[in-house]
Amino acid sequence: MPLPQEFHDIAKRVNNWGRWGADDEIGTLNLITRQVVREAAGSVRSGRRIPLALPLRQDGVQTGVIPGRVNPLHTMTAINQEIFGPGTVATSDDAVTMGLQAATHWDGLAHVSHSGRLYNNRPAGSVTAHGGATALGVEKATPIVSRGVLLDVARVHNAEGLPGGHAVTPEDLDAAEELAGTTVRAGDIVLVRTGQMRHYLVGDRQGYAFPSPGLSLRTPEWFHARDVAAVANDTLTFEIFPPEIENLWMPVHALHLVEMGMLQGQNWNLEELSAACAEEGRFAFFLSAVAEPFVGGSGAPVAPVAIL
Amino acid sequence: MPLPQEFHDIAKRVNNWGRWGADDEIGTLNLITRQVVREAAGSVRSGRRIPLALPLRQDGVQTGVIPGRVNPLHTMTAINQEIFGPGTVATSDDAVTMGLQAATHWDGLAHVSHSGRLYNNRPAGSVTAHGGATALGVEKATPIVSRGVLLDVARVHNAEGLPGGHAVTPEDLDAAEELAGTTVRAGDIVLVRTGQMRHYLVGDRQGYAFPSPGLSLRTPEWFHARDVAAVANDTLTFEIFPPEIENLWMPVHALHLVEMGMLQGQNWNLEELSAACAEEGRFAFFLSAVAEPFVGGSGAPVAPVAIL
Amino acid sequence: MPLPQEFHDIAKRVNNWGRWGADDEIGTLNLITRQVVREAAGSVRSGRRIPLALPLRQDGVQTGVIPGRVNPLHTMTAINQEIFGPGTVATSDDAVTMGLQAATHWDGLAHVSHSGRLYNNRPAGSVTAHGGATALGVEKATPIVSRGVLLDVARVHNAEGLPGGHAVTPEDLDAAEELAGTTVRAGDIVLVRTGQMRHYLVGDRQGYAFPSPGLSLRTPEWFHARDVAAVANDTLTFEIFPPEIENLWMPVHALHLVEMGMLQGQNWNLEELSAACAEEGRFAFFLSAVAEPFVGGSGAPVAPVAIL
Amino acid sequence: MPLPQEFHDIAKRVNNWGRWGADDEIGTLNLITRQVVREAAGSVRSGRRIPLALPLRQDGVQTGVIPGRVNPLHTMTAINQEIFGPGTVATSDDAVTMGLQAATHWDGLAHVSHSGRLYNNRPAGSVTAHGGATALGVEKATPIVSRGVLLDVARVHNAEGLPGGHAVTPEDLDAAEELAGTTVRAGDIVLVRTGQMRHYLVGDRQGYAFPSPGLSLRTPEWFHARDVAAVANDTLTFEIFPPEIENLWMPVHALHLVEMGMLQGQNWNLEELSAACAEEGRFAFFLSAVAEPFVGGSGAPVAPVAIL
Repeated sequence: MPLPQEFHDIAKRVNNWGRWGADDEIGTLNLITRQVVREAAGSVRSGRRIPLALPLRQDGVQTGVIPGRVNPLHTMTAINQEIFGPGTVATSDDAVTMGLQAATHWDGLAHVSHSGRLYNNRPAGSVTAHGGATALGVEKATPIVSRGVLLDVARVHNAEGLPGGHAVTPEDLDAAEELAGTTVRAGDIVLVRTGQMRHYLVGDRQGYAFPSPGLSLRTPEWFHARDVAAVANDTLTFEIFPPEIENLWMPVHALHLVEMGMLQGQNWNLEELSAACAEEGRFAFFLSAVAEPFVGGSGAPVAPVAIL
Repeated sequence: MPLPQEFHDIAKRVNNWGRWGADDEIGTLNLITRQVVREAAGSVRSGRRIPLALPLRQDGVQTGVIPGRVNPLHTMTAINQEIFGPGTVATSDDAVTMGLQAATHWDGLAHVSHSGRLYNNRPAGSVTAHGGATALGVEKATPIVSRGVLLDVARVHNAEGLPGGHAVTPEDLDAAEELAGTTVRAGDIVLVRTGQMRHYLVGDRQGYAFPSPGLSLRTPEWFHARDVAAVANDTLTFEIFPPEIENLWMPVHALHLVEMGMLQGQNWNLEELSAACAEEGRFAFFLSAVAEPFVGGSGAPVAPVAIL
Repeated sequence: MPLPQEFHDIAKRVNNWGRWGADDEIGTLNLITRQVVREAAGSVRSGRRIPLALPLRQDGVQTGVIPGRVNPLHTMTAINQEIFGPGTVATSDDAVTMGLQAATHWDGLAHVSHSGRLYNNRPAGSVTAHGGATALGVEKATPIVSRGVLLDVARVHNAEGLPGGHAVTPEDLDAAEELAGTTVRAGDIVLVRTGQMRHYLVGDRQGYAFPSPGLSLRTPEWFHARDVAAVANDTLTFEIFPPEIENLWMPVHALHLVEMGMLQGQNWNLEELSAACAEEGRFAFFLSAVAEPFVGGSGAPVAPVAIL
Repeated sequence: MPLPQEFHDIAKRVNNWGRWGADDEIGTLNLITRQVVREAAGSVRSGRRIPLALPLRQDGVQTGVIPGRVNPLHTMTAINQEIFGPGTVATSDDAVTMGLQAATHWDGLAHVSHSGRLYNNRPAGSVTAHGGATALGVEKATPIVSRGVLLDVARVHNAEGLPGGHAVTPEDLDAAEELAGTTVRAGDIVLVRTGQMRHYLVGDRQGYAFPSPGLSLRTPEWFHARDVAAVANDTLTFEIFPPEIENLWMPVHALHLVEMGMLQGQNWNLEELSAACAEEGRFAFFLSAVAEPFVGGSGAPVAPVAIL
């Protein structure tokens, strides 16, 4: 079905086209100023590092439902090869084939279009087979480093994980912000934990994929109001499945990526982080999550680290 | 030729086998303690972020000389596809095939063996076609975040870049440390700039590959004495080509990876960082360089960021 | 479990090591002489061509159970690109990643070893990560063209397909040969139809994979007695699953590939051929099934055609 | 520059749109009737088999000039792996990434469009990132088997190979047909030998690529008049480089693929075939050259065999 009026109304309210100039290709990453980064560094207290990427492996989160988004096929191209003759130093080398968005990743601004347009009014046709995303490619993103805030919605609900189909609402975010004991501010990167990752971590890929909690159509305004720089969660598609509004698919993608110009992350493992934040009694930290700079990429793998 | 006595003498002096236990798989990354990370965060002053990764593209640094280490082949698997019907949100998706060590990367501890052994006395045979590096895989590495120090050897020599074949000596490192105005300490990550990257940046892949400056066989002791956590430079192979000692190939790989258990980085673009450090008058910074966690990887792409 | 005595007894009886010289790398393909090819051409009567390869697609026969044997990931690298400027001729181009044995393929002689040996007493260690099969690579195979004979065992049993676990016996082959109305002779390529492919053709990949009929441990002697050049069937692994003798896995692979030096084909679609042969009342034909010559390949995709 | 009038005049004369119905997707392959195949089988005299495919290897014919058309990257995914436990049968397995048109291949009918159209008036837009060639895909091709005729233009010119830039003319084809001692007829597959392959065979990839002899803009009418089913040659791009008419690029592609609906082959190794034909004193033979059936492929690897 065509996008409903409700979508267009929200779109108008969160739209950032032109805000950073007609040529802008990084959207809300503009909100990460030097001052934001300096202050983010001040969030480091214990020096504890928590990795947020899933290991890259052939039995990763993809089930084959999204064509082309293949789990990593890792192969050795050399094993202990004595290149320079017997008795010399030996090397092993490897190669990989994978979907850029197969595992823990950022959706780039070229990942989604609607009504023929990408973020900042770029034509959808600027994505080509030959060059990939010739505009808004993920390699344009500035190094993604800022203060991170974990909005632990699963913990707010006192649940191991939210049920499939659960819509994380602005009210959920408010409650999680209160639990976090900090106010989300301009340039922050917000990590929303639903607990959905628990399914994959016990080996249930189907259960991880569907049904899934996700972010309500109403949350982009919440992020917009606070001028958040980026948002990531712990689900396969970021969105609610089955969808919040029947037949309205991927509305949050369209609002974040196309209207706001805000990168969003998927398949982030927030379980260890959740435990660590609860243990340390604070949910804000330094976050480094630099996208692998694939030229023309509509998305990119990332190995994020939270530093408490 | 077999490894010469000189090599074995140095090997004995820098060897870390057993230092962190018989089961250790991360080597000198053990030196990055919480305190080191906390202090590293204190290096952030201006909040300026400098990306150190080369863009990932098909005309990358590889020339075909190292079989299997192929430049990234980036392809679109979907372009503005309206998955859920006409008029709905449209998505673009992509896939890649690449050598894990094709671009800006970390050599993992399983990348090199000599005399049948990997770091910490692991058998070379633990690297297999089926499982990759079943020991010492790059996914074992803890998130690589620490204080970074740029040792700008090219700048010390007042050169745009060191000439091919130039051996960076411990004396060069001393001079660069003095220029840096800081003392390299335990847990630091050292970035050695030779300026070799300038060749690639003007499109000369052959000139970048060969001949090349690199680190002298005598430098691992320098790093060992200071308990450095990791070292990266701006060359294709890290080593001097043609080699410092005739027919002694890749001795520094063997010392760093096998004897010390120290990850080393290659193809790091240190040009912008060099200019920024000179401008700000300081060469120490916060460095985040988390390896993409490929299970069984003998190396991994990385998108490092220096934060001044 | 170690290979049982029964296996070793049969192995001794079918062994071809040294038969075509100590350096031979093609085994029973030596049986395809010029005279055999000439006579095969005489099998063409109607001129009807039947393709035997499955279409190469991402939803192919692989289910993920065999790591690395990935279904084809086909991507476009250019779409209607006007390379030489607007209004000029436009080109589309594509790339693929796939397991060489993912779809309709030949197992090469380097695909299997036992007791440390490949065919003709070559060391198993001649297969390396860097060079692949440095001996017995599939590129060594001469062009595989000969008379083909369909042994339609499913039809003999008057079944759409043999049940999972069914062992095709020498007696089954005798009966199918009688149905075929021809005597299998030296240099022939035998296609054994079990009907298992029907599961995949209706979209049931799991049912196709397991349980599966296959060739009994007793059939290699049948092929050996007739000096068959190669054998293919319409199953995922060629073998019976669950196995004919408990814990004896892939014995027929070991006998065909290692002992006899005989290539075997898997995932051949024999359904249309079966119907055509029945219709024309003859089960012998000209068969062209040239392996794609991957250097160092342990197997290769093939697009066979039967010409009646 | 836009396509010149000369091109459009020829296009009109050779156009086959609608000839085999509005839905036709195989073009001149329709000319290969059962009778043609039967008669082709009669061309087998000696039973000698000549393979025409280049070995598939990483140092193949591609030089990196055509983005995405990468030489095969062949990797082992398992090496002598004893899947079912120590002492059992061990298997080796492999995977590949390659451009479908990287080595010896057929251009499919979806490979080229001009003026927004593919063969038989299909819209160029039917080629998509998600599905590849949704019309005219190479998997639609019937098994390519027919009489082959070698037109040995290099031999006519008494040259090891034609010089770069040489335009093979209709007169050249007439002379080669006379040398062949047979008349090219409907349904034949013509192989045009320029001798250009000699450069690659001695390791000179650049010399093979450019400059190159190729087929004159005037030859499609020659093939059209004789109702040839397909044409292949021994060059990288099939066309003359530098082009016959300044700034008119790939006109023969457009005439063969778009106007005539005739597959064309590239990178066919005709050297051994040339010697064998001269030796046997005949240049017609049975040719089997079945395209690997990649669904949505704009082209496909092929391992052709000529049988004399």
